[in-house]
Amino acid sequence: MNRRLILNILGKIMAVEGVLMVFPVITAVFYKEKHSVIAFVIPMAMLIALGLLFASVKTRTKTVFARDGYVMTAVSWIVLSFFGCLPFVFSGEIPNIIDALFETVSGFTTTGASILTDVEALSKSMLLWRSFTHWIGGMGVLVFVMAVIPLASGSGNLQLVRAESPGPDVGKLVPKTSQSARILYAIYSGMTVIEFVLLAAGGMPVFDSICLTFGTAGTGGFGVLNSSVAAYSTYCQIVITVFMVLFGVNFSIYYLIICGRIKDALRSEELRVYLGIYFSFSLLIAFNIRNIYRTASQCVLLSFFQVGSIMTTTGFSTANFAAWPELSRYLLLLLMCIGACAGSTGGGIKISRLCLLFKTAHHEIHKLLHPRSVSVVRFEKKRMDDGIVKTAHVYLMLYVMIVGISVLVVSFDEYDFTSNFSAVLATFNNIGPGLSRVGPIGNYSLYSPLSKLVLIVDMLLGRLEIFPILLLFNPSLLKKYRIRKKAGTDE
Amino acid sequence: MNRRLILNILGKIMAVEGVLMVFPVITAVFYKEKHSVIAFVIPMAMLIALGLLFASVKTRTKTVFARDGYVMTAVSWIVLSFFGCLPFVFSGEIPNIIDALFETVSGFTTTGASILTDVEALSKSMLLWRSFTHWIGGMGVLVFVMAVIPLASGSGNLQLVRAESPGPDVGKLVPKTSQSARILYAIYSGMTVIEFVLLAAGGMPVFDSICLTFGTAGTGGFGVLNSSVAAYSTYCQIVITVFMVLFGVNFSIYYLIICGRIKDALRSEELRVYLGIYFSFSLLIAFNIRNIYRTASQCVLLSFFQVGSIMTTTGFSTANFAAWPELSRYLLLLLMCIGACAGSTGGGIKISRLCLLFKTAHHEIHKLLHPRSVSVVRFEKKRMDDGIVKTAHVYLMLYVMIVGISVLVVSFDEYDFTSNFSAVLATFNNIGPGLSRVGPIGNYSLYSPLSKLVLIVDMLLGRLEIFPILLLFNPSLLKKYRIRKKAGTDE
Repeated sequence: MNRRLILNILGKIMAVEGVLMVFPVITAVFYKEKHSVIAFVIPMAMLIALGLLFASVKTRTKTVFARDGYVMTAVSWIVLSFFGCLPFVFSGEIPNIIDALFETVSGFTTTGASILTDVEALSKSMLLWRSFTHWIGGMGVLVFVMAVIPLASGSGNLQLVRAESPGPDVGKLVPKTSQSARILYAIYSGMTVIEFVLLAAGGMPVFDSICLTFGTAGTGGFGVLNSSVAAYSTYCQIVITVFMVLFGVNFSIYYLIICGRIKDALRSEELRVYLGIYFSFSLLIAFNIRNIYRTASQCVLLSFFQVGSIMTTTGFSTANFAAWPELSRYLLLLLMCIGACAGSTGGGIKISRLCLLFKTAHHEIHKLLHPRSVSVVRFEKKRMDDGIVKTAHVYLMLYVMIVGISVLVVSFDEYDFTSNFSAVLATFNNIGPGLSRVGPIGNYSLYSPLSKLVLIVDMLLGRLEIFPILLLFNPSLLKKYRIRKKAGTDE
Repeated sequence: MNRRLILNILGKIMAVEGVLMVFPVITAVFYKEKHSVIAFVIPMAMLIALGLLFASVKTRTKTVFARDGYVMTAVSWIVLSFFGCLPFVFSGEIPNIIDALFETVSGFTTTGASILTDVEALSKSMLLWRSFTHWIGGMGVLVFVMAVIPLASGSGNLQLVRAESPGPDVGKLVPKTSQSARILYAIYSGMTVIEFVLLAAGGMPVFDSICLTFGTAGTGGFGVLNSSVAAYSTYCQIVITVFMVLFGVNFSIYYLIICGRIKDALRSEELRVYLGIYFSFSLLIAFNIRNIYRTASQCVLLSFFQVGSIMTTTGFSTANFAAWPELSRYLLLLLMCIGACAGSTGGGIKISRLCLLFKTAHHEIHKLLHPRSVSVVRFEKKRMDDGIVKTAHVYLMLYVMIVGISVLVVSFDEYDFTSNFSAVLATFNNIGPGLSRVGPIGNYSLYSPLSKLVLIVDMLLGRLEIFPILLLFNPSLLKKYRIRKKAGTDE
């Protein structure tokens, strides 16, 4: 393992986080929240000082191996979350460190699950920072830093992006990784600005528009009101619905559209399945809740909003869906697992990975019938090699295992199965609200510190797609390192 | 597809089922249940007549291909279940055909889920038939017939056993398949007799002893009292506990012991993991329920019984575990999925398949760290080839999919998530009782006919390990057949 390089890159990332804290500081100054200024300036100073120190570490080689990429990603997300939670602790607004960490990890991983019983009690600068973490985490921290500063040489950048980006197979938009990162962030920023303008133009207060736009763009789900999005106008709810769905699309589709290859974009299998699921589930739920609300249009508005919110793993709500009929609740649970497209800011298992798993299953059944036939699994017209398919299967296996074990630990708190199961699904898939006690009108404050820690790990596992975090706990990694160290090699 | 051969074998199986109905007829005569005699004699006559007719179909070739084996197995289980449910309908004791089919499929698949609100209202002959179906289904219908009559030539017998026997990789005890089938049934029958003697000697009424022994041997779970096993003596409960665990062990272990290869038997990885999970879960639950019952010994007795019952997918109960703390309930849900050993009469995902999945996951993580390393997955000291591993992964994928879709359909009935989810797990894994409304003191009568049909299919999918039933619904199978027919070939 190239420890020096990891420290070097970590330093750059920490410095960038320190700089990004300028925005909440400006907010604090603007709204005259004196105690918040100090709460932000201390971690800011720590981040920039430590960051510059680490970044000054010289490394002999800038080559990044696959395992370095994974370790790097896991370590940087944990460090960022730790420093990111300090303002909440220092200001006393979330005095408990585990609670503050839960809220920050929930922010960076774009989960949007909260331990707060009263969101409106937070100061404006804290609210902004909370929503801003969604925006930073949405497209990826390493990807952001990479767009600004060159991090590694050769294929090293790709290894870093691969470990942080969602989906079974990470492609590049253009041959150069840093160039791809810049294009991604340009699209991301552009869409963010458009949504903000549309919301502000629709009469939403500017501060709320900024925070909710961050929450939508990162498919996070933190709001600024206790009622989430329910209090805003129908126009604003529709704008948010549309943008939630847009941010759940694979960003390479937008790149194709920008390049004028609209036909290629529309031919995407993943996009078709994504929209197909979105519309069919929305209509089914709208029909299922027809007796609860007065008008058909209200049912349609609510269901299209909620399905978009859960499927893209945003987690905003305009209704207490935990009180909807069982069928709707279960459909939402299914959507939690399905998730958004690969290469979007959303979480979940991802449409493309599910397509891949379905296709392999179909393929294997075919092979049972015709043992001697030769055929391959194709997705998006590309031949899927055995490696990608195997990794997708191991992913599913680990997914099921992690859900099973997490619910087990959370069960020690003795709440009901629906709460525990949906809490794990809602954090692991980076949604936010679950059902029953952790539904839209509930929150995660009831759980014990141990359960909260498990859910924090679940959020990280979900956002980084299991492998990086799991590798960090892999004893063979550390053992290997010790052996290498004894042998006197740096690699 | 060799349709003539399939019809020929089906005929033999039907005739055997007809002959097996002699036992409930004797019971009916013994207990002077006149209406039951007729209810059994009609389907008996139908089975034997149709069976002999079909068995008289001449076939040119006796070769069985993999797909013929799967189709054969699926078709014969469905036909057996249909005729097996007729006595319940004709006697008027379960007049509704869907309910009767549910009860019979639950019997043959050794699930033990019931739609009856009052078991004790059934006549003795119906109770015996109900429990006898467990015994027939436990070791496999085709395997039973094969032990008596030669069915196919060459490797054909193995193809049939492979489709019916549980576990990721079916081995043979001795080179000849029919010989293996005979050995299996000899061990099975021997253990059945021993349990019966021990129960009857312990003061349990002879009729109850017979029925409960059938229920234990097939890991089914149908009892003769509304209170399941709770009313019997502690001695009888301990005997049943021990035999439930014994019938959940891979039968090849017993063959090794009989051959004097005790060391080899004890070296089995699957056996160790099985017993490890059994004892650790039992102790955990005994500790978790310590405040509910008066004495520690009662807690231990109840938890060792219940864990054995759920893990081996039997489904007997001595306590209303649906009222236990959430942790215990969740541990039982986990056990439902884990299941017993491959090559036993139990259901679930199976220990060996889970070991295989865990090992592959670990292997793949290792490969992420060391992309160039060459290593293989080993289980029971044998190298696992890619085919077996892939099939296990596709199995898991289909398992998750089927649970997801089944809960979806059952959700239309608008019961709570815990009931629906545990109902699907309890039928799909062939357990019997679930939690909440379908717990040990509840039953499946509340569900709609559609939900019952879904649960019936789930029981068959679970018992035959998904593939045979799924292939039956595969349109390419039928299409292929039509093309072949046009071309004038018989294969």
